[in-house]
Amino acid sequence: MSKKLNIGLFGFGCVGEGLYEVLNKSNLLNAEIKSIVVKTKNKKRTLDESYFSYDSNVILEDPEINTVVELIDDAEAAYIIVKKAFEKGKNVVSANKKLIAEHLDELISIAKGKNLSFLYEASVCASIPIIRNLEEYYNNDSLSGIQGICNGTTNYILTQTNYGKDYKTALKEAQNLGYAESDPTLDVDGFDSKYKLQILIKHAFGISTSPEDIFNYGVRYVTKENVNYALEKNYHIKLISHAVKLADKVFGFVAPHFIKADHPVYAVENEFNAVIVEALFTDRQLFVGKGAGSHPTASAVLSDISALQYNYQYEYKKAESAKELYFSNDFAIKIYLGSKNEIKLKTFDFHEKDEIFQSREYNYITGWISFSELLKLDFNKEEDLFFAVLPEPFKSSEYFKRSEKEELLFA
Amino acid sequence: MSKKLNIGLFGFGCVGEGLYEVLNKSNLLNAEIKSIVVKTKNKKRTLDESYFSYDSNVILEDPEINTVVELIDDAEAAYIIVKKAFEKGKNVVSANKKLIAEHLDELISIAKGKNLSFLYEASVCASIPIIRNLEEYYNNDSLSGIQGICNGTTNYILTQTNYGKDYKTALKEAQNLGYAESDPTLDVDGFDSKYKLQILIKHAFGISTSPEDIFNYGVRYVTKENVNYALEKNYHIKLISHAVKLADKVFGFVAPHFIKADHPVYAVENEFNAVIVEALFTDRQLFVGKGAGSHPTASAVLSDISALQYNYQYEYKKAESAKELYFSNDFAIKIYLGSKNEIKLKTFDFHEKDEIFQSREYNYITGWISFSELLKLDFNKEEDLFFAVLPEPFKSSEYFKRSEKEELLFA
Repeated sequence: MSKKLNIGLFGFGCVGEGLYEVLNKSNLLNAEIKSIVVKTKNKKRTLDESYFSYDSNVILEDPEINTVVELIDDAEAAYIIVKKAFEKGKNVVSANKKLIAEHLDELISIAKGKNLSFLYEASVCASIPIIRNLEEYYNNDSLSGIQGICNGTTNYILTQTNYGKDYKTALKEAQNLGYAESDPTLDVDGFDSKYKLQILIKHAFGISTSPEDIFNYGVRYVTKENVNYALEKNYHIKLISHAVKLADKVFGFVAPHFIKADHPVYAVENEFNAVIVEALFTDRQLFVGKGAGSHPTASAVLSDISALQYNYQYEYKKAESAKELYFSNDFAIKIYLGSKNEIKLKTFDFHEKDEIFQSREYNYITGWISFSELLKLDFNKEEDLFFAVLPEPFKSSEYFKRSEKEELLFA
Repeated sequence: MSKKLNIGLFGFGCVGEGLYEVLNKSNLLNAEIKSIVVKTKNKKRTLDESYFSYDSNVILEDPEINTVVELIDDAEAAYIIVKKAFEKGKNVVSANKKLIAEHLDELISIAKGKNLSFLYEASVCASIPIIRNLEEYYNNDSLSGIQGICNGTTNYILTQTNYGKDYKTALKEAQNLGYAESDPTLDVDGFDSKYKLQILIKHAFGISTSPEDIFNYGVRYVTKENVNYALEKNYHIKLISHAVKLADKVFGFVAPHFIKADHPVYAVENEFNAVIVEALFTDRQLFVGKGAGSHPTASAVLSDISALQYNYQYEYKKAESAKELYFSNDFAIKIYLGSKNEIKLKTFDFHEKDEIFQSREYNYITGWISFSELLKLDFNKEEDLFFAVLPEPFKSSEYFKRSEKEELLFA
């Protein structure tokens, strides 16, 4: 028989409201929202004010509540709530990727110490059940890579720039549709995609990272020249959260990629998200679904709640085998790098150049470059630079060190 | 601590061999193949003959073996093995869709009676974890439809006919590549897709069906005229296992569909499989992966084995809510129906016709038709007829009954 869940819900924004609705319409028995705590009083909400409390202790100090669902925006406030919930012996479901990216190991250890569950499927690609599948289904397979379109806002913008709109128009549209915040930094500079990548890396490879470890570059300064170059070559530009295992290293970063027409995410457009899992035995698996929105996100939260009824916990099995793996930025990728100013391009040291294009209006280089060259700059702040990853497998840095040595030998 | 699994393996064909390899290379602890039983002696295999036995009792009567993995071709022999395995108190993992489609309810009931697990993820779309996701992840969502490219052989053939090859050349190629059997009937006439659809319907809607309930029509008689019509309209022809819930009815069948360019499975080509789950809360989810082959299928078997370590069982939760649902063929679809012989087309009674094309070489009609009209014939045996479902939502039969009555009223 399933356990009765008395839920304390923090937050009643878009997802919280969705959860309330979805829970009522679902056939999930034995689960009930007992209290809802929100921050702001006298705000227009879909439920009467009598449903809400404003003091987190209404939930945290209620011994009847055994399940905390945390759906607030503020990662720091969430951190305090989640820790206290564990302290009080309550299981936690969260959708807060920033909280998880920043504090996962600590929270795992606290939850484990008290034999509590900490589930957060909704934090990565909302309705796509990627964490559960990495945990349960690929737990014995050897994963070689993971690639995701994890941010619907930027995918919407890039789809629209592809159709000929400029970045600013596309962003405004995304804001009007409710996909983008008035300050879109977290989305368009790739922070949101990075938090999700960190969570994916943890479940796919067992490796813990902190946000500072991982390079995130977004789409703020994509120009029509970049889009046109891509379209000429039959590429779509996508913001990809990308992690690859090469021998004992895992490389991971967020950046725009040029995606070929035969690649499974080429046709994943607008607000949709996608994740590709590359594994030794299962080969390449693609998951596509809505990555945000009230109901898709709430349904992921609901699945976690449902799993709590049988005391489900993530096992982080990959962490065992990850002892010989470490996170690294020491690799080389093939990129397209463009600028109106050719002098800017000359400051980058490429291993090999494939194409050099110069004109009065625009300039670009394609070729192999050490990732460390890209780490020198904060690309999100470089208005007149744009780079995108070309569709070639990453190489370890040794590859080019070796060939440079060989070149010396024959010089 | 996970349970030690002593495995008895039936069958050492492509998937059995793959499982042996995958199990050795995986990090799955506490699971070991103790005995392998095969049918044919003195066959060339990748392991020495000393590894094999030829009497099923070597596994079934061995009290140390707690897990039977059944990977043989013969559904009837498998039925006897699986029943006996349950009788002897062993959990069973199977990849045999025909066995499951024909005997699922009986096998579920036997397994349940003895509190044993019967897992069969590999039976539907191999590496795509669709059963597990329907069971675990969508178990509280209200599903409205499921569509799948569940057969890699026909998807390979249709991809190639799309690229200009004729059916026979494409089939021969599929056979040379090992995708198709020398007698391809099960694949090309849609039987394999039907068995998988039955399993999907059970887990998505909770409804039990027998193979006779479900119409299956394949791709044996697709012609260049049909392919060209599709390409002109920017459709790809795909063989779809399709089930839809409308009010208290579930409609389901296997037939070629014209798929629009913006549909998620349009670009799923060659041996790849895909499943789309349409649900109230999660909206539309797409899963894509390899639907056959040694390693992809073996990896699904491995995931089931791994789940047995914590005594995982399917719960068939949807069966509870399915009490008010029933399977029906009483619906209308929009189709394209073509023939060299226009007289043949005239024998079909359409509700509404959209296009009528006649020429010396080829004729077709598009329009709305009762599904019962299509059930009159065994289309797999009609060399000079081809139909494909057009991209319009199904309608209940009442829809047209009503409008015909209204027409009478105004006649």
